[in-house]
Amino acid sequence: MATTELAPAPAPQLDAYADQAVLIVHGKDQPGIVAAVSAVLARIGANIVSLDQYSDNPEGGRFFQRTVFHLADLNVAVPALEAELGEVITKGFGLEWKLSQRSVAKRVVIMASKSDHCLLDLLWRQRRGEIPMTVPMVIGNHTELADDVRGFGIPFLHVPSKPGPDKSEAEAKILDLIRGNADLVVLARYMQVISEDFIEKIGVPIINIHHSFLPAFIGAGPYRKAKERGVKLIGATAHYVTAELDEGPIIEQDVVRVTHAETAADLQRRGADVERAVLSRAVLAHCEDRVIRADRETIVF
Amino acid sequence: MATTELAPAPAPQLDAYADQAVLIVHGKDQPGIVAAVSAVLARIGANIVSLDQYSDNPEGGRFFQRTVFHLADLNVAVPALEAELGEVITKGFGLEWKLSQRSVAKRVVIMASKSDHCLLDLLWRQRRGEIPMTVPMVIGNHTELADDVRGFGIPFLHVPSKPGPDKSEAEAKILDLIRGNADLVVLARYMQVISEDFIEKIGVPIINIHHSFLPAFIGAGPYRKAKERGVKLIGATAHYVTAELDEGPIIEQDVVRVTHAETAADLQRRGADVERAVLSRAVLAHCEDRVIRADRETIVF
Amino acid sequence: MATTELAPAPAPQLDAYADQAVLIVHGKDQPGIVAAVSAVLARIGANIVSLDQYSDNPEGGRFFQRTVFHLADLNVAVPALEAELGEVITKGFGLEWKLSQRSVAKRVVIMASKSDHCLLDLLWRQRRGEIPMTVPMVIGNHTELADDVRGFGIPFLHVPSKPGPDKSEAEAKILDLIRGNADLVVLARYMQVISEDFIEKIGVPIINIHHSFLPAFIGAGPYRKAKERGVKLIGATAHYVTAELDEGPIIEQDVVRVTHAETAADLQRRGADVERAVLSRAVLAHCEDRVIRADRETIVF
Amino acid sequence: MATTELAPAPAPQLDAYADQAVLIVHGKDQPGIVAAVSAVLARIGANIVSLDQYSDNPEGGRFFQRTVFHLADLNVAVPALEAELGEVITKGFGLEWKLSQRSVAKRVVIMASKSDHCLLDLLWRQRRGEIPMTVPMVIGNHTELADDVRGFGIPFLHVPSKPGPDKSEAEAKILDLIRGNADLVVLARYMQVISEDFIEKIGVPIINIHHSFLPAFIGAGPYRKAKERGVKLIGATAHYVTAELDEGPIIEQDVVRVTHAETAADLQRRGADVERAVLSRAVLAHCEDRVIRADRETIVF
Repeated sequence: MATTELAPAPAPQLDAYADQAVLIVHGKDQPGIVAAVSAVLARIGANIVSLDQYSDNPEGGRFFQRTVFHLADLNVAVPALEAELGEVITKGFGLEWKLSQRSVAKRVVIMASKSDHCLLDLLWRQRRGEIPMTVPMVIGNHTELADDVRGFGIPFLHVPSKPGPDKSEAEAKILDLIRGNADLVVLARYMQVISEDFIEKIGVPIINIHHSFLPAFIGAGPYRKAKERGVKLIGATAHYVTAELDEGPIIEQDVVRVTHAETAADLQRRGADVERAVLSRAVLAHCEDRVIRADRETIVF
Repeated sequence: MATTELAPAPAPQLDAYADQAVLIVHGKDQPGIVAAVSAVLARIGANIVSLDQYSDNPEGGRFFQRTVFHLADLNVAVPALEAELGEVITKGFGLEWKLSQRSVAKRVVIMASKSDHCLLDLLWRQRRGEIPMTVPMVIGNHTELADDVRGFGIPFLHVPSKPGPDKSEAEAKILDLIRGNADLVVLARYMQVISEDFIEKIGVPIINIHHSFLPAFIGAGPYRKAKERGVKLIGATAHYVTAELDEGPIIEQDVVRVTHAETAADLQRRGADVERAVLSRAVLAHCEDRVIRADRETIVF
Repeated sequence: MATTELAPAPAPQLDAYADQAVLIVHGKDQPGIVAAVSAVLARIGANIVSLDQYSDNPEGGRFFQRTVFHLADLNVAVPALEAELGEVITKGFGLEWKLSQRSVAKRVVIMASKSDHCLLDLLWRQRRGEIPMTVPMVIGNHTELADDVRGFGIPFLHVPSKPGPDKSEAEAKILDLIRGNADLVVLARYMQVISEDFIEKIGVPIINIHHSFLPAFIGAGPYRKAKERGVKLIGATAHYVTAELDEGPIIEQDVVRVTHAETAADLQRRGADVERAVLSRAVLAHCEDRVIRADRETIVF
Repeated sequence: MATTELAPAPAPQLDAYADQAVLIVHGKDQPGIVAAVSAVLARIGANIVSLDQYSDNPEGGRFFQRTVFHLADLNVAVPALEAELGEVITKGFGLEWKLSQRSVAKRVVIMASKSDHCLLDLLWRQRRGEIPMTVPMVIGNHTELADDVRGFGIPFLHVPSKPGPDKSEAEAKILDLIRGNADLVVLARYMQVISEDFIEKIGVPIINIHHSFLPAFIGAGPYRKAKERGVKLIGATAHYVTAELDEGPIIEQDVVRVTHAETAADLQRRGADVERAVLSRAVLAHCEDRVIRADRETIVF
């Protein structure tokens, strides 16, 4: 109860970002990059809202910059701005860059199996407007989650996995569904191995979540093994998917404390809580263009 | 993705607890209580699963004990056991005690207004079987959350609040709905002041959640004030409701870190995350009979 | 034990920062500030190592920027650089700015009473090279800590406080000791009220640490009151000292979990742990020029 | 600063525990153990201060119990009490048990190499009375820490390690120093592998601390590897030493958050902070007889 009638937490209005953009620049560090980029923005009349810049080695290292700026009539100005950024950043410094309009939500396709905790947390945050994304579809290799997904007004598509190591048929179907319709794919406890071929063809980043333990437990039954070893922390790691299984650049991690009194099933439930929190934070950071991939790590501004 | 097809986290089967009970004992500390109580349990053939005992002062303090035990054909044995516990604990030591069968879920009525974060987290955990409770109804003074609640197969009842300080009519309606149907009432961001009269008449514990700040901010607009003061932590407190507003015995608290870059609306959203986590943990602890109220504080085993 | 002989964690070598500087700029937000400042740095041949910029409102808000840069022969170039920054930032935009050479450690005078936990943690981190500061002296109103301080090779000066509200004599002595010898004063559990007059005359920032509770407990015996209310978290807040007692801009906060089983003395010890951690992090952030004071809050980059 | 002159946190007075004891019981679970043990304590006139009991499986699992009790003239009563406990617990139930007087501090020998963070935190807490232990000596294979240790009034003994895999000569010297003089050995960043032979001969538990990462990094240079992979958490694990390197029962774990902006040396310093906190908490729990070893895990009450 409370003495004053408060409104619920207001959702971020993408409209409010109508004239805001995020510019990511990265590559080999050189003197003068910040000055040159900010001069372009100043000339075009943009006002910088926030700027984060980081070089991992003052001498010969890598350069990373995220700039949020406001520019009246942004959508009209984008072509001219992109042309000038190409001149200055690509030709002038040989760096990579990407410009994103903040009012345009990322299209995120979610893939899931039977567990609902990660999926529902994402859909619920999307509905509240906490994550600047739309979810054009959810793809499941099982059917248990269909009703929940459709309850959010989102299409659920069932692509079952055949037994055996050859997943090429199911993967081909999934590729047909996703290609052109997604800016990001999220594996929300999707319990199928994804082939290197699929990762190459999908053409957009893939974020995965998995449990993490200190020490690591290899193979089946990790929660049972963690229980046997009496670990005091249960963790989760969200990362981009690469050809190396569970080894892509880490975006976000967290842990929760557990005690000897918790059963292996308790550990799994506690793990589910930290998994959904970590995955949601990772997807949020990605959709806000806060994450820059760099070799085997990420820079999260 | 994962190499092995894992089942979702198994829900706790209340059936599995068919022959388990929780015995809470508390009152004035005296020598021999543990021995006497455990002797009763031993005589009747019960096996103690876990026992937590605590005295807040070795000399003349208060005694608190929570015992979980297993007893074959528990429901048949309960009357005889209660009679003997009355002899030993009430008559012998002058202490209070309560016996609960673990296979019987608590009936929890939830009251809410417009915010969904606390309500949905509770309903979702109830559905997963994470909290040993049933939810016979949700009462709202607004209608925004009706569809979500009914989507869980749970009745939503609308009892609007009239403007002005006199809430007696709405409270009378709510009392009619709840009395006899609830073992616990949870205020999941219910934004109406509850009268002392209501608290007395309801006859079951009421748990409330509210935001907490360091330092405290009095009056309206606490998130705006917290932003102005640049707080680095946002917290939430779950407590039993007493006649003193927001001052009842604390069950659970937690905080999240925030930075200067977060707006007042961001702080409110971060606050919502910690509120739902703290309220769910408090309701879980209560439903597992882990919480003993003692004057102005709680013992949480 | 470990299989390889590791060296201890290397201390930061201030020499390594010989040609690095931190530039803080803040004031009324306007378009073009970042471009103008980075153009100055580019013209003089500096390479930006990291840059954090933040505006608290895209329209008419406040502007904050912290830039770390490398410039060969920095100490020779400083006068010319400061002249140009004055032209561009002060005259051009009407903003405030400060330039600090990273190889010059801050001079930090610590004031303490009887408790050693905050003081020793600071001295130990200073000795390890974890905080870029020197400690020219420690001032105590009691003598208990003299040996510990002198064991670090640091002068301990005893300035006792007379009973009664008039602290002007002791404050005058302390001012004589500190003025000209300190860039920062840290109150490491210094248990005397400091006058508004002292704060004005000292001429350098003062950082204080105090315990924090949810809810707040006013007056004497806060740990006893926290125990009576059964709080589940104990916190600490480090802030700049202003004329409003315990109300200055917050730099850092943190909490630790406690349970009913801990006594008031336990809470006080747990509080000491979080106090020393929070104060050391706040002093580190200040000495690295990461903190910008802005009205009643801080921006911590 | 503060308005009231507070005393420093009071150290726990071991004298205050003059008539308190801790009884640990563990072994195969059976009905009636709690009743039988508490009946012994009740007969002898003891008052139970706290009791924690846990069975890891209601059917055929393991039983663990920690009981703190107060008994007038405890030291006189101990022999009779031990005789009766032997009758009831050993003969009656076939369980293991241990009785410790709380007023008798554990004798803890600390072994260290060059890093001071874990060692000094332990010595400082011992001096403050936060851990119920005495430190009869510190053994180092290097000499860097001798002055710090002796500054606490504690003997420092130098036992250098010869190069090469054969550590038997140094280990023999250390055994001569420790045997009969220690109830616990703590490896506070002692950077030598300890032989299985040494672990068997030492006859008392050994606690070790090491850094922990998600994921794990094998071999030399773990902080450099963690930096390359961009981990977001740095952790530490305290465990009992067994013949399996770094694989003994875990007592305590914790993590701290790190960002991309931190160098490998920063990570190492952050790791040092969490290492000293985790090791101190583990040693405290052990010295308070809160830890029961059970196969490959620990029960920490």
